[in-house]
Amino acid sequence: MRTPEEYKKSLREMRPNLYKFGELIVDVTTHPATRRSVEAHAKIFALAHDPKYRDVVTTISSLTGRRISRYLSIIQKPEDMVANVKMKRLMFNLVGTCTGGRCVGWNCVNAMWATTYEMDQELGTEYHKRLRSWLVDAQERDITLAGALNNPRGDRTLSPSEQKDPDMSLHVVEENNDGLVVRGAKTMIAGVAAANEVFVMPETGYKERDKDYALSFVVPRDVEGLTIVEARHPSDKRDFEEGFDNPVETGITQAYLFFEDVFIPKERVFMCGEYEYSGRAVNYFIMPYRSAIGGCVAGQGDVIIGASIAIARANGLSEKVFREKLVRMVVNNETTYGLGLAAAVLGEKHPSGLWLCNPLLANVNKVHVARLPYETKLLAQEIGGGIVETGCMPSHRDFVDPRYGKLVRKYLKACAPAETRVRMARLIEWLTVGAGIPGCMHGGGSPDAAKIVIRRSFDFERCVELANRLAGVGNEAKS
Amino acid sequence: MRTPEEYKKSLREMRPNLYKFGELIVDVTTHPATRRSVEAHAKIFALAHDPKYRDVVTTISSLTGRRISRYLSIIQKPEDMVANVKMKRLMFNLVGTCTGGRCVGWNCVNAMWATTYEMDQELGTEYHKRLRSWLVDAQERDITLAGALNNPRGDRTLSPSEQKDPDMSLHVVEENNDGLVVRGAKTMIAGVAAANEVFVMPETGYKERDKDYALSFVVPRDVEGLTIVEARHPSDKRDFEEGFDNPVETGITQAYLFFEDVFIPKERVFMCGEYEYSGRAVNYFIMPYRSAIGGCVAGQGDVIIGASIAIARANGLSEKVFREKLVRMVVNNETTYGLGLAAAVLGEKHPSGLWLCNPLLANVNKVHVARLPYETKLLAQEIGGGIVETGCMPSHRDFVDPRYGKLVRKYLKACAPAETRVRMARLIEWLTVGAGIPGCMHGGGSPDAAKIVIRRSFDFERCVELANRLAGVGNEAKS
Amino acid sequence: MRTPEEYKKSLREMRPNLYKFGELIVDVTTHPATRRSVEAHAKIFALAHDPKYRDVVTTISSLTGRRISRYLSIIQKPEDMVANVKMKRLMFNLVGTCTGGRCVGWNCVNAMWATTYEMDQELGTEYHKRLRSWLVDAQERDITLAGALNNPRGDRTLSPSEQKDPDMSLHVVEENNDGLVVRGAKTMIAGVAAANEVFVMPETGYKERDKDYALSFVVPRDVEGLTIVEARHPSDKRDFEEGFDNPVETGITQAYLFFEDVFIPKERVFMCGEYEYSGRAVNYFIMPYRSAIGGCVAGQGDVIIGASIAIARANGLSEKVFREKLVRMVVNNETTYGLGLAAAVLGEKHPSGLWLCNPLLANVNKVHVARLPYETKLLAQEIGGGIVETGCMPSHRDFVDPRYGKLVRKYLKACAPAETRVRMARLIEWLTVGAGIPGCMHGGGSPDAAKIVIRRSFDFERCVELANRLAGVGNEAKS
Amino acid sequence: MRTPEEYKKSLREMRPNLYKFGELIVDVTTHPATRRSVEAHAKIFALAHDPKYRDVVTTISSLTGRRISRYLSIIQKPEDMVANVKMKRLMFNLVGTCTGGRCVGWNCVNAMWATTYEMDQELGTEYHKRLRSWLVDAQERDITLAGALNNPRGDRTLSPSEQKDPDMSLHVVEENNDGLVVRGAKTMIAGVAAANEVFVMPETGYKERDKDYALSFVVPRDVEGLTIVEARHPSDKRDFEEGFDNPVETGITQAYLFFEDVFIPKERVFMCGEYEYSGRAVNYFIMPYRSAIGGCVAGQGDVIIGASIAIARANGLSEKVFREKLVRMVVNNETTYGLGLAAAVLGEKHPSGLWLCNPLLANVNKVHVARLPYETKLLAQEIGGGIVETGCMPSHRDFVDPRYGKLVRKYLKACAPAETRVRMARLIEWLTVGAGIPGCMHGGGSPDAAKIVIRRSFDFERCVELANRLAGVGNEAKS
Repeated sequence: MRTPEEYKKSLREMRPNLYKFGELIVDVTTHPATRRSVEAHAKIFALAHDPKYRDVVTTISSLTGRRISRYLSIIQKPEDMVANVKMKRLMFNLVGTCTGGRCVGWNCVNAMWATTYEMDQELGTEYHKRLRSWLVDAQERDITLAGALNNPRGDRTLSPSEQKDPDMSLHVVEENNDGLVVRGAKTMIAGVAAANEVFVMPETGYKERDKDYALSFVVPRDVEGLTIVEARHPSDKRDFEEGFDNPVETGITQAYLFFEDVFIPKERVFMCGEYEYSGRAVNYFIMPYRSAIGGCVAGQGDVIIGASIAIARANGLSEKVFREKLVRMVVNNETTYGLGLAAAVLGEKHPSGLWLCNPLLANVNKVHVARLPYETKLLAQEIGGGIVETGCMPSHRDFVDPRYGKLVRKYLKACAPAETRVRMARLIEWLTVGAGIPGCMHGGGSPDAAKIVIRRSFDFERCVELANRLAGVGNEAKS
Repeated sequence: MRTPEEYKKSLREMRPNLYKFGELIVDVTTHPATRRSVEAHAKIFALAHDPKYRDVVTTISSLTGRRISRYLSIIQKPEDMVANVKMKRLMFNLVGTCTGGRCVGWNCVNAMWATTYEMDQELGTEYHKRLRSWLVDAQERDITLAGALNNPRGDRTLSPSEQKDPDMSLHVVEENNDGLVVRGAKTMIAGVAAANEVFVMPETGYKERDKDYALSFVVPRDVEGLTIVEARHPSDKRDFEEGFDNPVETGITQAYLFFEDVFIPKERVFMCGEYEYSGRAVNYFIMPYRSAIGGCVAGQGDVIIGASIAIARANGLSEKVFREKLVRMVVNNETTYGLGLAAAVLGEKHPSGLWLCNPLLANVNKVHVARLPYETKLLAQEIGGGIVETGCMPSHRDFVDPRYGKLVRKYLKACAPAETRVRMARLIEWLTVGAGIPGCMHGGGSPDAAKIVIRRSFDFERCVELANRLAGVGNEAKS
Repeated sequence: MRTPEEYKKSLREMRPNLYKFGELIVDVTTHPATRRSVEAHAKIFALAHDPKYRDVVTTISSLTGRRISRYLSIIQKPEDMVANVKMKRLMFNLVGTCTGGRCVGWNCVNAMWATTYEMDQELGTEYHKRLRSWLVDAQERDITLAGALNNPRGDRTLSPSEQKDPDMSLHVVEENNDGLVVRGAKTMIAGVAAANEVFVMPETGYKERDKDYALSFVVPRDVEGLTIVEARHPSDKRDFEEGFDNPVETGITQAYLFFEDVFIPKERVFMCGEYEYSGRAVNYFIMPYRSAIGGCVAGQGDVIIGASIAIARANGLSEKVFREKLVRMVVNNETTYGLGLAAAVLGEKHPSGLWLCNPLLANVNKVHVARLPYETKLLAQEIGGGIVETGCMPSHRDFVDPRYGKLVRKYLKACAPAETRVRMARLIEWLTVGAGIPGCMHGGGSPDAAKIVIRRSFDFERCVELANRLAGVGNEAKS
Repeated sequence: MRTPEEYKKSLREMRPNLYKFGELIVDVTTHPATRRSVEAHAKIFALAHDPKYRDVVTTISSLTGRRISRYLSIIQKPEDMVANVKMKRLMFNLVGTCTGGRCVGWNCVNAMWATTYEMDQELGTEYHKRLRSWLVDAQERDITLAGALNNPRGDRTLSPSEQKDPDMSLHVVEENNDGLVVRGAKTMIAGVAAANEVFVMPETGYKERDKDYALSFVVPRDVEGLTIVEARHPSDKRDFEEGFDNPVETGITQAYLFFEDVFIPKERVFMCGEYEYSGRAVNYFIMPYRSAIGGCVAGQGDVIIGASIAIARANGLSEKVFREKLVRMVVNNETTYGLGLAAAVLGEKHPSGLWLCNPLLANVNKVHVARLPYETKLLAQEIGGGIVETGCMPSHRDFVDPRYGKLVRKYLKACAPAETRVRMARLIEWLTVGAGIPGCMHGGGSPDAAKIVIRRSFDFERCVELANRLAGVGNEAKS
């Protein structure tokens, strides 16, 4: 298994094809726009070599029997899914935010594992075989793998093939014996700067006319024809500053991927035209995603709880005053964590060997993920006071100014030295309105989409029968 | 295993010692004040003989290897606890409300299983051995077992031994070679009318001076010296009426138990004076209780969802209008159910063989149980309209009145016959402001008590360390 | 102005035409099913003679310059509407629940005041003149006036004239020079038992084919052909019991009114066929209703706050423990009260002289009224403990039983005598799941109906323009 | 009354004493760190000359009878306070965020108006006379006036005089016939960069030993000895960028003010040592502040509603899908606005002529202001999708890049041109996690502080009496 240094070396050896602020990023491991995300992902490689965490972040490959990164494994039993949720919580604990350059790709592999199995069984294709081959190799190479699902989509009232501009979703423009040529974009993709490869998934809702859009494959991040532009995030210019106004060594990135006629060799193609399967693929994708994200937000919640107590103490206030609020934060945390675990446990086995989470509980969890962490953040701002709410303090540059820096420092100290207090306040700013906020409202789909799945997963008519029986009536009032 | 009829016969053969409205209840199986609760419990006996449900409500005894009621089993593994949560949900599905005359006693047995094990190990007592003997016999006899924990307590700022009246908590007044004599009361005890025996537990917080109050034993419900007075519940006079104003054949009871110098033979005593263990006993009690109650309220929630849809249809409204509300009800339901399951799964094994639930998740669940079902009920009232909100319809007696009953019936019909509509509206009234509401706010302890456990179970300092590390500071701001 | 005794005498002199539980109620002032409601309304007459409250419950008639009951006045300025909100809060403070036998009728008179004015102006009718004449006389007679709006409606997907049974909404069956004959029903009408007359309003949404349903008039409560059946309410059998299980001397009633070809003399008809005006009439009705109800629920909230503190003390707990909860209750209370006042203040003058409340704020208030009081009640149950949650105590009959009553009393005392504690617990039961709960979810229309008015009252496009201007864009993204 | 150009000229003529990022800001009207705030305040001057808005932002001076800025008036009647709330809403509508460089100062003047009146009456001082003189002149000069209350405070468990460093709150270091010399700091002061003068208020809780801290005065912003350092705000480096990543022309600033032995001439001192009056002063300050802030957040809420609809349309989605969410936003908006108005209306007159808001309703409003706007923002993020949630789009620099900018633009267009969509998404980012978020959680004090005032303002014992009377008990259960 690779060391952090080997991992970073692999990134440095890739063709530079990422841009931000109009600049080509030559070395993602050192460039201010990307290095924090790389550091966060490197941390996972370090943990794999740390006896305390090895069993959390690694597992035994069901394909080769060798120890591999958990992020490249096939989830085969409830325990694997529980381990997934726990690992997510741990990673947020340690890096403070999302390491999406591994987990989305992992999710894609698992979703396509079941989908390709069904296609091979039902259509006689070879997708599952290809995926297995690639995966054995990927496990061996111990790569980081980003996952890409979201298309720009253009006018959302029209299907991909109905758009004025056919490129608004990623599609095949040419197909031959060796492979495919694809064009389009994938937007808001997490952790690409820290990834060695990118696993591409189709979206859902495709009809026959949209079959050129039913597409899954995997590419090296630096493949020819792929241009990547990093998106902004709140206060991202601080990544370029000196000092502690961004006090955190880690971070996230999200990118736009532009495919300008990129060639994909056949053995890396896992779906091409089988539009009836794209919905299933997305479905297999969202269930573990919406379960595990309960661990993600709980993990960040742990940090927020800790930071809230720390800032209260730095402000000279006892955290006892904030007991009710702190308990509420814990309740929020454990609710999403617990529901993630419950979705894992109530799941079932897919013929391909994949463990499927419970769709009802996974989507109930997503609904909570779109609300509870926001309350937790709000409570952190309430506890922390005005300096925390909008990070209302002079900049680090002013903090160290030779003329008036001493005034800034004099008046920012409280029950902790000025720098300690400022750093903790900046951490909460980072977590609540700064660069540390992950996209948990829309990541893995919107809460409204989750509600639709809930409606479909729950047996309302059975409940009507229960009520009818108790009320002593028949089904006279039909819908 | 007993049939419903055998069960009812056993109740009829007991000494009458229950009162309500100043009247001695001679036959609990037919008296209007108690028969609904007996019917609900009889349902469990029926299910044990129904192949569809047998594995839900029965299991194999870890003591004898014979099939027994699940309500008399020792919970030994996560699967047992998961089965508990699922059984609770099923029972609420089928009878609409709480069958507390079995589940609280079951919880007591399990809590004392671990507690007596520890006492025998640490103090050389014989409590665990006695409990085992009694339990083997109880499983054989297939009894219903109520559980009694709550004392009147008098002035809550004082401990039991400090009260002006020493009887404000149940206590020993005499002890000899054959057994004990006890005096006091247990209040708000569920399902006693439907129980063959009552298992008594101590409360918590006892010091040495309170050791006469550290007391656990089991008695036949009709033991000499025990007087039972049934408490009221909302709209309980309808239990005595004809017609469908209480449209449900099942129901709950809660009673006050007055022990006037009751003798307990030694072999039925499981704690007597070991005050240091009463806190542990209560702790072992609340964890599975606060997990499983997630299944209870979800089970009632299923009925409420069904009834909401049914009344909407009866009113001539499409349930589509209420989609957002129905999804919210499902989210509420599955949240408590899922957290109950998660608490089961994240538990650990006690040396006595008992499976202990996760205390943090169990208590987080209790906090939700004190809020989410109330929102579900509110939504049912919102969907159902004015007739549902306070049951605002003429009585059954008026419904059938020979003079003007035809007017009542004419104007109460809508998209369902008048009787169907009224019965469904009455069911929702029963579920939300009527006799069907279980005490889920305070049952198994108050939400504020749960919050105290949450505070104690969660490692806040670990979170502060996570935050300090991310912010790049030490622990300068100590509390 | 009448004294309470004169008021009761007037009720006793009326023809008995109310039924409950199959029984004709001969004297509403003494019959257990109705006397509590009469007592509540009599309280208003007493206050009119009490110097401390006279200016709250009376005012000067804009028609005659004489002092009249405020419940028979025309609301002409913001101060009148503010006084309305304050009077509602006071009345709930003093009687604990709704005195709907005056306020709905008052609301009807005001709504028809503006509507008839418009009809006379636009159609040349004499409705406004008639209404004025009747009102001058009603003020003189100082009557109590119930208001009736809600029809049974049958299949709600069909308009009144499309129903299989044409009587599902109240309608004209005959019209001649002297007046009308009407048939149908009005359902869930508050306080009829305590009223001298009933003011009838049309509902909304009528088309030309429904014009026989566009109907407004006023009748004596005991008019020939009118049969009234009282609806049930939670725990209503306690009204017939001795003792303190219903500890409150006042109460509410809601009734079904069946009109079997009732004759209405012309001078008491205020709308007959003018279907285009029925929507306006309802609109004028809901604005002050949905404002003033903020005072109602705040007034009941005050009692709930007081009862919560009282039961905490009786239980031996300091209310300091419950500070956060008590503050939340105050916030809920003052929110609906304050918004009611704001709706009054931001209103405008109608040409008829009527003061119209602000529709947006009135309906925002209705949305809160359908949620906040429920949280307040839940908090009361949380503070009060198990005896409060479902009134889980033996009955009064058991409390005084010569055999075991002493046990009940011994164990129910705490930091207050047993009777004090029981009465306070019963009061909270009455307020939260008992006979004291008013229909504030659906009274004056459902919250979903209020949301529709909000959507129509708020200028969304203006907001889009504000956003466009700030973002520096035009209106390129049209809906 | 001054024009925007005259106003800006006055700012340019002041001594430069503001810093940000280590740089002295020579011209606040053009420097990127401050010009947006100046533009927002200049807008008010423009409106004073616009017939459509003149009556909103100006009024007639009660001192001189001449037309003056409303921001320099004494609030004397409910209508003045209502106008205040409405003006705040308008200003947020037009500039999108807080123009705190006028309103806090205005609030200070009014608070000290009543406080100095009381001091002059009770102590024979001349503070009120001085304040009046200064105010007449300030109205004449039509100045912008910031207000400064918050001190650094150091260790919050200690009073100002107990601090290790006596400067942790602003205090007098010298006093003579001509005036005072003061030292210390005021932190997180809104809009100083846009202000001509700064009005200083004491904090509360002072004892006799703290009398050097009981201090109120007014200074020119550029007074000798005053150093001002601007605080950061989220994404503040975008203020220095070209393009539309901060799409808004206006903005806010918050600054730290360091007083290094600043001389204050006697006629500008309004409190010096009268520690018993500092609490009253703060009290008079928070009531109108916590009322009017309901208008502020409603005004920003209007913009958020508009932007949510605009982005939904730009994304190609109908806002009908989001109806429930949009109504919720309106409810949130109107709740704080309405309660602000209600607090104004239920107020009372102070002997000095000042109109005092209702303290209970003002503080209830503050509690809502600390929650409801956050829900509104969350809903905006939910409606807007992933690009809105964290502003996840490439930078403007990338948008216009000659190499790949065309790709960015191609894939960001939807149902609106790419630039329109990006600008609207950036506006929502600015409003929810960007530079546009005002400090409404802690501005004017924390919600927990508001809850303390609520507890003190509400008559709980009166409620206990109401409950006792209804329950038919006396006050047996005393606290």
